[in-house]
Amino acid sequence: MTNDTQPVPPQGPLNGITVIDLTRVLAGPYCTMVLSDLGARVIKVERPRIGDDARHIGPFVKGKSAYFMSLNRGKESIALDLKTEGDKEIFLKLLENADVLVENYRPGTMEKLGLGWDVLHQRFPKLIYAAASGFGHSGPYSKRPAYDMVVQGMGGIMSLTGHEGAPPTRVGTSVGDITAGLFTTIGISSALYHRSMTGEAQKIDVAMLDCQVALLENAIARYFASGEIPGPLGARHPSITPFQAYQAADGHLIIAAGNDTLFKRLSEEIGRPELGQDPRFTTNQDRCDHVHEMTEELEAALAAKSVADWLAQFEAAGIPCGPINNVEQVLNDPHVLSRNMVVEAEDPITGTLKMAGNPIKLSSFDDPPTRGPVPDLDAHRAPILNSLKQEP
Amino acid sequence: MTNDTQPVPPQGPLNGITVIDLTRVLAGPYCTMVLSDLGARVIKVERPRIGDDARHIGPFVKGKSAYFMSLNRGKESIALDLKTEGDKEIFLKLLENADVLVENYRPGTMEKLGLGWDVLHQRFPKLIYAAASGFGHSGPYSKRPAYDMVVQGMGGIMSLTGHEGAPPTRVGTSVGDITAGLFTTIGISSALYHRSMTGEAQKIDVAMLDCQVALLENAIARYFASGEIPGPLGARHPSITPFQAYQAADGHLIIAAGNDTLFKRLSEEIGRPELGQDPRFTTNQDRCDHVHEMTEELEAALAAKSVADWLAQFEAAGIPCGPINNVEQVLNDPHVLSRNMVVEAEDPITGTLKMAGNPIKLSSFDDPPTRGPVPDLDAHRAPILNSLKQEP
Repeated sequence: MTNDTQPVPPQGPLNGITVIDLTRVLAGPYCTMVLSDLGARVIKVERPRIGDDARHIGPFVKGKSAYFMSLNRGKESIALDLKTEGDKEIFLKLLENADVLVENYRPGTMEKLGLGWDVLHQRFPKLIYAAASGFGHSGPYSKRPAYDMVVQGMGGIMSLTGHEGAPPTRVGTSVGDITAGLFTTIGISSALYHRSMTGEAQKIDVAMLDCQVALLENAIARYFASGEIPGPLGARHPSITPFQAYQAADGHLIIAAGNDTLFKRLSEEIGRPELGQDPRFTTNQDRCDHVHEMTEELEAALAAKSVADWLAQFEAAGIPCGPINNVEQVLNDPHVLSRNMVVEAEDPITGTLKMAGNPIKLSSFDDPPTRGPVPDLDAHRAPILNSLKQEP
Repeated sequence: MTNDTQPVPPQGPLNGITVIDLTRVLAGPYCTMVLSDLGARVIKVERPRIGDDARHIGPFVKGKSAYFMSLNRGKESIALDLKTEGDKEIFLKLLENADVLVENYRPGTMEKLGLGWDVLHQRFPKLIYAAASGFGHSGPYSKRPAYDMVVQGMGGIMSLTGHEGAPPTRVGTSVGDITAGLFTTIGISSALYHRSMTGEAQKIDVAMLDCQVALLENAIARYFASGEIPGPLGARHPSITPFQAYQAADGHLIIAAGNDTLFKRLSEEIGRPELGQDPRFTTNQDRCDHVHEMTEELEAALAAKSVADWLAQFEAAGIPCGPINNVEQVLNDPHVLSRNMVVEAEDPITGTLKMAGNPIKLSSFDDPPTRGPVPDLDAHRAPILNSLKQEP
């Protein structure tokens, strides 16, 4: 084992909180990563030998999963087989000193292990129990397996993403998992507040599919208001115009000049002030009704200059706009770097790893540019068992 | 005014918390909607006459914005002009009895009003102050205007979404705003916990662009691991195969059979058991390396039956799969309905409105199928002023 000293959680509002983390892959580990960034101590309880499945998902750096590493920095790891009595005893001892248990098993798994909410709540009345699952702990699909792709498809976001007539398009990152991780985190931190006021702990049940519904926002309003089924939107906003990606001389840029004042200013900046007076484009509703003409008129003018030239000009004029950055450009953007959104963790084998930082900036706490190391499987067994005052 | 009685917040972990809400449009109102669903009282402070800009964004039902309604149900509204001394006094009185202030102005706006964090923290040391903005309260782009489209473009998610060689593709819902709303909510609930333990309040600074970086997850790992810039992914997962949308006889379905066992089972179910033995497809890495052959082989077999037939068969076999639902199908799905993810609010003019429910299900609290009414602008002026023991 290479990194067996207990990492010190960053200073944060959740200092003093201990999270026992049974989660695997993405939704759950993302939640406990945020909790760790906010100062909680996170003890990852993994299956012996195999560990979190994400340890076996690429990309790999010197044999280690960079995918796993980016989600689990700063956590501790202990390997326990919850199907054996000895390890289960250790697990229960861990819970005795813990504030939060998080799991993302398929519903019913914890009950089979004799570790369901009812049992644990009776034994540990102060323990907050959070479950993130594909379909939640109730309802007809509850026991079905789910992954990000499945809930992106079932939850409607794929029907809104992509271009009319083109093949289906997935959102390019795992928003099915990540939003479930975020809602679970909100549930946990709210439950911690509630416990601090009342002494009462509770169970939090978050379903990835439910979170997809919560993400649909104006598509739901549009459907109930009009009865029409919203379709894929390409690269534009459904009810604000101009608010989309436009082609310039050497590529695309985003322009978000959604109100009348900004649109008039845009018309002037592109040398087409008459567009601001055009009855087709007077109000946002007019512009939405003539969105294709709007795109044609704007792109005819935008073809005259490069993306960089237009962005410089529009920024000076206060028109909301931006480039379409690739991941390399994002990670080298001076603003992104100045916000400490690329942090580092040290690993004895892979060397320094870079990963996304914490977007919650707090006035009472520093936002450190480093995170604790990524735990090898079972790396913290000895100190964790010691802290339980057991023989290792 | 049609709905001037104060709505009673739902029972929840944030009962007793009062949020003063200066936010407009989406990111901030989404945050305070979640806080309201968790039991906080939310008082929306809006500009006189105009109110929240979202009141003027379609779709409209009987002249009212369904977009605004879906985000602001259950909140109270008072119109105040913070540039006049009288209204500013009322605002400061509101803060005196509040726990949280949320705003999503461009950085600097609150300071210009004499209401920046430094001033407010000195006067109201227990007040938590949350700011959600495009680029955050520090860094070179801080003062720039931003909207969802702008940060989706700048933050990299658009470079991962869509099909190779096709025009740029926006994520079909406003993940730029919504994820900022969720991270702000996490910041607030964690700060409430921290305040309950230490008495200390703090400022929370969340930037939409930062949240986009936090969403990139494995794209960052892939970039740093390989130096290659990740491109658009169509409808598949970047490092798990088979994990994408596949064409069947009458449409597409999602199959997420990402491990070897599931892939072998899938091969059998589609009548092609030899695929499970094919050296091109033995491990996940093999399948990723031969993703196009994999797609061809699977789609050749899947062409034999309809989406519905395959889904029924795969579900029975325990293979993670799902349809690509449109918004109408999602909102009528029996599981989604059983999870109370479509809730209702009553409005005297538009009648019953349907909107997304709260995905955080808590064992200590009911999850009511209704929400308080949507406030007309300034609808709660009298009761709010009364509660300050002022003459209205």
